[in-house]
Amino acid sequence: MSVQKPIYEGKAKILYTTDNPEILLTHFKDDATAFNAQKRGQIQGKGEINCTIAAHLFQLLESQGIRTHFIDCPAPGQMRVRAVQIFPIEFVVRNIAAGSLCQQTGLAVGTVLPQPLVEFFYKNDALGDPLLTRDRLFLMNLATPEQLDQLQTITLQINQILGAFFHQCGITLVDFKLEFGLDQQQQILLADEISPDTCRLWNQAETDPDRRVMDKDRFRRDLGNVETAYQQVLERVLAQIEMSP
Amino acid sequence: MSVQKPIYEGKAKILYTTDNPEILLTHFKDDATAFNAQKRGQIQGKGEINCTIAAHLFQLLESQGIRTHFIDCPAPGQMRVRAVQIFPIEFVVRNIAAGSLCQQTGLAVGTVLPQPLVEFFYKNDALGDPLLTRDRLFLMNLATPEQLDQLQTITLQINQILGAFFHQCGITLVDFKLEFGLDQQQQILLADEISPDTCRLWNQAETDPDRRVMDKDRFRRDLGNVETAYQQVLERVLAQIEMSP
Repeated sequence: MSVQKPIYEGKAKILYTTDNPEILLTHFKDDATAFNAQKRGQIQGKGEINCTIAAHLFQLLESQGIRTHFIDCPAPGQMRVRAVQIFPIEFVVRNIAAGSLCQQTGLAVGTVLPQPLVEFFYKNDALGDPLLTRDRLFLMNLATPEQLDQLQTITLQINQILGAFFHQCGITLVDFKLEFGLDQQQQILLADEISPDTCRLWNQAETDPDRRVMDKDRFRRDLGNVETAYQQVLERVLAQIEMSP
Repeated sequence: MSVQKPIYEGKAKILYTTDNPEILLTHFKDDATAFNAQKRGQIQGKGEINCTIAAHLFQLLESQGIRTHFIDCPAPGQMRVRAVQIFPIEFVVRNIAAGSLCQQTGLAVGTVLPQPLVEFFYKNDALGDPLLTRDRLFLMNLATPEQLDQLQTITLQINQILGAFFHQCGITLVDFKLEFGLDQQQQILLADEISPDTCRLWNQAETDPDRRVMDKDRFRRDLGNVETAYQQVLERVLAQIEMSP
């Protein structure tokens, strides 16, 4: 496989074409951004850590019947993935209230939701990734009602699998963001990444609202020890994967 | 009826108790605010104009079976209304894309929607009146699913009645905001006001995107001739009411 030209550079990853048009190579960057890229920085080692965490979580999901874009990791920080046409929708699952949900509803951070909440945001930096109602999503033709129902079902399945796994790691899966795409056969594949950049993860051994944070909120909120937190998530994921049958 | 103490002062109205606990007196102010009160000003005569327009539109709706809080206008700029417990939800009906819908979806201003779009916003100035999904609305206990369905149905009925009426006035009803409340018998009543402060109204005789505006967007966007536009809406409403059987 020869790496060819970059076709997309996002805030945390660069996508390259390969000699196979159905396969892309993802390079995970150490760059970190927050608040729609108003805050920028670097998290040393993040690219390799997130790539490894995402690879293991994709494989876990595949083993439980969720189709993902993951193929393999040819080198640290690099992931080969199936090329998909991304739905311009960020699927956010919330188990516990945090972040923009609290800012926009007044719900207290840490409120356990009566059931997982799936929300849709328009993946559009220029517009600030705004919240979407189902009506707006359909008005904008971002997905069909059938696709959205299917995507919502898969999203909730993923929440169950990841929530149980992280719980075994001593980590509470507070909320997370997913992206999906369609492959050339029009099959829905989970895409993007699953990592401390895209999940809120709370250390169950800590009750202090700042100390428990093991995710990008450490960067967003200048809580310090960002690298250590990412490294700890990686170590717990690896240890748990090794213990699994 | 003796006016008693003010119990609520909003951006455009003051509510007073009366000697009857089921009746409040509304005083319509000339004050105008926009962008969550970041922009403030006055529109001379607005209080009386909006009170008169709202009174006629409430009566029109009542004549077509919509229950409202309207009782009568004891003096210019003053309206007696039934006391209700307001749902903290702004119901926005959109027939044509404009305002925040365009800013948050990228839809072009003036796009005719395939069907009227009913949206819910959390009536909370401190949080900036954010868009609500149905899930968020229920999570916050702002209404029951049965109430919301009923409110949505009434909202669409009002859109039909007002849209037809304004069309007879040579005005396109682009979008508008409604508020509802429950009276002491737990009946849903339309409350607040319907006026150029709460509707986007476009003069059908004008095609220029600035000249056609007959509503608070003239104030928001510094288009000038604000008072004239409000006055014209009033005159057309009065003329059309007089012509009705």
